[in-house]
Amino acid sequence: MPEVRFLPADIAVEVPAGTPIHEAAIRAGIQELELPCGGQGTCGQCLVEVNGRTAMACQTRVATDLTVTIPENRDVAMQVVGESRFLASEDVLPGADRLSPLYRIRRLTVPPASIEEHYSDWKRLIRELGAELPVSAPLAVLGDLAAAVRKEDGKVTLAVEESAGGLRIAEVHAGHTANRALGVAIDIGTTTVAAQLVDLDDGRVLSTHTFYNAQIRRGADIITRIDYARTPERRAELRGMVLETINSLVHEMAADPKSIRAAFVAGNTTMIHLLLGLEPRYIREWPYVPTVNPVPALRADEVGLGIHPDAPVEFAPGVGSYVGGDITAGLLATDLPTNRQDTFLFLDIGTNGEIVIGNADWMVGCACSAGPAFEGSGIRCGMRATEGAIEHVEIGPDCEVHYKAIGGGQPAGICGSGLICLLGELFRRGIVDQSGRFHDGRSFVVAPDVAVTESDLENLIRTKAAIYAACSLILENVGLTWDAIARVYIAGGFGRYIQVADAIRIGMLPDLPHGRFSYIGNSALTGAYVALVSREHRERLAEISTRMTYVDLSSDPRYMDAYIKAMFLPHTDLERFPSVAPILKNQRRNES
Amino acid sequence: MPEVRFLPADIAVEVPAGTPIHEAAIRAGIQELELPCGGQGTCGQCLVEVNGRTAMACQTRVATDLTVTIPENRDVAMQVVGESRFLASEDVLPGADRLSPLYRIRRLTVPPASIEEHYSDWKRLIRELGAELPVSAPLAVLGDLAAAVRKEDGKVTLAVEESAGGLRIAEVHAGHTANRALGVAIDIGTTTVAAQLVDLDDGRVLSTHTFYNAQIRRGADIITRIDYARTPERRAELRGMVLETINSLVHEMAADPKSIRAAFVAGNTTMIHLLLGLEPRYIREWPYVPTVNPVPALRADEVGLGIHPDAPVEFAPGVGSYVGGDITAGLLATDLPTNRQDTFLFLDIGTNGEIVIGNADWMVGCACSAGPAFEGSGIRCGMRATEGAIEHVEIGPDCEVHYKAIGGGQPAGICGSGLICLLGELFRRGIVDQSGRFHDGRSFVVAPDVAVTESDLENLIRTKAAIYAACSLILENVGLTWDAIARVYIAGGFGRYIQVADAIRIGMLPDLPHGRFSYIGNSALTGAYVALVSREHRERLAEISTRMTYVDLSSDPRYMDAYIKAMFLPHTDLERFPSVAPILKNQRRNES
Repeated sequence: MPEVRFLPADIAVEVPAGTPIHEAAIRAGIQELELPCGGQGTCGQCLVEVNGRTAMACQTRVATDLTVTIPENRDVAMQVVGESRFLASEDVLPGADRLSPLYRIRRLTVPPASIEEHYSDWKRLIRELGAELPVSAPLAVLGDLAAAVRKEDGKVTLAVEESAGGLRIAEVHAGHTANRALGVAIDIGTTTVAAQLVDLDDGRVLSTHTFYNAQIRRGADIITRIDYARTPERRAELRGMVLETINSLVHEMAADPKSIRAAFVAGNTTMIHLLLGLEPRYIREWPYVPTVNPVPALRADEVGLGIHPDAPVEFAPGVGSYVGGDITAGLLATDLPTNRQDTFLFLDIGTNGEIVIGNADWMVGCACSAGPAFEGSGIRCGMRATEGAIEHVEIGPDCEVHYKAIGGGQPAGICGSGLICLLGELFRRGIVDQSGRFHDGRSFVVAPDVAVTESDLENLIRTKAAIYAACSLILENVGLTWDAIARVYIAGGFGRYIQVADAIRIGMLPDLPHGRFSYIGNSALTGAYVALVSREHRERLAEISTRMTYVDLSSDPRYMDAYIKAMFLPHTDLERFPSVAPILKNQRRNES
Repeated sequence: MPEVRFLPADIAVEVPAGTPIHEAAIRAGIQELELPCGGQGTCGQCLVEVNGRTAMACQTRVATDLTVTIPENRDVAMQVVGESRFLASEDVLPGADRLSPLYRIRRLTVPPASIEEHYSDWKRLIRELGAELPVSAPLAVLGDLAAAVRKEDGKVTLAVEESAGGLRIAEVHAGHTANRALGVAIDIGTTTVAAQLVDLDDGRVLSTHTFYNAQIRRGADIITRIDYARTPERRAELRGMVLETINSLVHEMAADPKSIRAAFVAGNTTMIHLLLGLEPRYIREWPYVPTVNPVPALRADEVGLGIHPDAPVEFAPGVGSYVGGDITAGLLATDLPTNRQDTFLFLDIGTNGEIVIGNADWMVGCACSAGPAFEGSGIRCGMRATEGAIEHVEIGPDCEVHYKAIGGGQPAGICGSGLICLLGELFRRGIVDQSGRFHDGRSFVVAPDVAVTESDLENLIRTKAAIYAACSLILENVGLTWDAIARVYIAGGFGRYIQVADAIRIGMLPDLPHGRFSYIGNSALTGAYVALVSREHRERLAEISTRMTYVDLSSDPRYMDAYIKAMFLPHTDLERFPSVAPILKNQRRNES
């Protein structure tokens, strides 16, 4: 068999002739090759040097002995995105007296038995626990019980797990010990994975960390990843990647990860399938059903989480293949209107876009193929909202450009919020027309090395059109108009930075009073956190998932019509955007 | 250290000077020594030959090197008592269509998903299962799911565990397979352990076996065993013994014990503590509380049962230290009156005696120290109801004796029913007086080598007095008289053989019309069996245990008075036994 030698690692591997180079790299244990397009040969992210010539690792097959040099600095994907600035809304956090985490240290005093109340040690203990659910325990705990309840005047410290089926006493110790228990809330996004370390005694968030999902090396979006995951080996590879990300996060946050005794996980349906090594293909094959949803409670060792092996792991329930547990968890993190007259719109804009409209009586959820424009993909100078990304742009009357880059240094590219702002400015100044086409030239220079082309703008307009069209159609489906929307929640890591005015100006968000919009940041993580610490919220989460109706817009023939109407700036139907009218008057004045 | 050599096994062991011989035997792995008195030196059952001289192994300590010969045929305790003749009452068996065993093979057809009903494979499966409780599964099952539901037009075979907290799908296979699941119902008595192998598909009992509890080598009654179990090592020893008994039973019944996927266990509170290696001492120390009751569900590997290691093991809940799960299970096996006017009396007479009085509204349970007379202990020629035991006696007018021995051969001793019958006959013929004392002589020869002494009869009278006194007092406590008792259930392996007329004649059972008495045999085993196969019965069992009030008669000063009144034949208060009056007239005639 031909031998492939990888540099600079200097690792050699023998593979059958015909093996693609990137598979040879996997066999050699080399993980640095990114395949954002899933190995379709379209993204060019897996370029390597083969015997001195540049080639795509996913498209080039091994025929004879080869030396493959992998460019350095490829594994940026594992860099820490940084400590998240998004914390849970004070409104949705349970009070410390109402905490009921998945795992909790309880300090009780078991009264002695009497001849009148000759209950067993176990029964007196359960009575003090005040449990309404069935209580179980492993035999080891039963064996420790008699001594524990008699040693320190009935004072005992318990470790108690709580699930939908009941309580489980995992440990019992004599006396009131200082044991503490930690938990972790995890949001697995297609692009980033975020986690919060939580003190399960008082519900405090100890730290929040975010890493890129290591799976992005094998596809930027969920469809590419599902396609990549077509063999058991590749599912195992993707599973290992996301576990590597999560376990690195956990390790970053906790000195002793084994002290983490419970986890609550939110994520879109595909990410949860890939985390668990489950077959994801039916998510994208008609009629688009997941293998498992909701996911029953599992144990950390089954899942592969590097926390305490017996830790219970629960999952936010999804609603459909494209409205997952990240969305139900996100809704949980909001102060959803409880008045049935008040309808809300919930928008989660990330690598995918999900939309929920509802009120106290009903909820309808759908997904739209937002595309990754807002996260920097599909845009030549696009980048994620990190150091060096232009996040705000102003264009003066004489086309002079003022920009603000994250970190204040030399701009390296432009992020989602910068793009939305830029497109609005280009439109306001009449540099582009209502279709997003330049009146003069084919590109616009924002800063040295940062320019946008017409094709970049078209990608962006497609994304905003998809979001707006989906919202309009779902509103139409439920017989409402935009006026009925009392609250708009914008979720997703990206949502934090965009200006509502900018987003309305390009027709991405509806032209409603700005006061009706709320940014709720990474609400999926916040939802996972409150579910981790509160039974009330776990029950509410289950209720949200069962109350929501899932609508598949892709099968609705009216969708294309609504989409095409939204491909203009701000929209074909200008009456929908009265606040944008002055810009158009301006434009016409310029043209005339 | 001195060396002790055991013969005929020829095993040598070094032990510290001062070690009792029976402990040296345990260290040498020799199990044949019985200590029915728990090593108090009172029963003489552990006689061995030490350097040629007879000695008690429990009382003789090792000083120098010794040779100990253990008499052969000592391990009779492990002989099979024989296939039980007691099967479940037809009345209490659930119909096959209402079976809901702890573990069950289910064959379902999962309908395909549609665009309207885009439920996950998991959700469609659960819907077919028709479960009202939460459903869980290990990750391995989730991993098999997508392929299993698509392979054979949705036909799948599941293995489903059911507990109070919900269902757990333990296995999933494509197609409708021929998998079968077995279960075992176990009744752990102080003297005997009985088990039934059950086909969990149709609820059929495949076989019933009974062995002596190997623990009888370390004490004949529960108090002796609790005293013996005072160190962790001894608890481990006792635990190992009963597990050896159960696992031998299981092995006897099932060619492949690993095919047994669920167990339901009934037993008195002490037996259950010893099975689980739990501290039993507080059962016999004021205020007499068990460590654990009810016992939460466990797994076979924790318990040490030699069946499938993951098999769920559930336990009949007890009511108090001396009214255990054997009694609640026994009640479950009866057709308890559902009419609140009909009061029942339930009597379980074995090594211990337990009594329950109640109706559809309330139940009161208590224990009485019946003593082991009915099982042959405390009676010189007493023996268990096996081959060679005299079980029926008739004495003619000229004192000629007619007896019937089990098996029809040469009588070897007399069992409980034989003793009751004999005492009644001795009384009827005026051979003994109302106190059980012989008019002439000090013993009565029933057959060659089988004679009873006054002291034997006194032990028997104590036992019957304890039972009758406890019943009377508990009736008095609830403000009822004997007339109110519509049904008397007599449980316990022993109860099958006694004649109601004999038991009334000696004042053990109340003087009620014979039609009110029912023999229900080993009802604890039957109860364990119906609980194994039916959720309805498990729920009823829990209800019985919570509805029952436990009364500690030993702390009631009136008990001694009632007991002393019952120490006569049939009773001091003759008005209670009108049907026995002719005998007394006869006696007075003889005396006059």
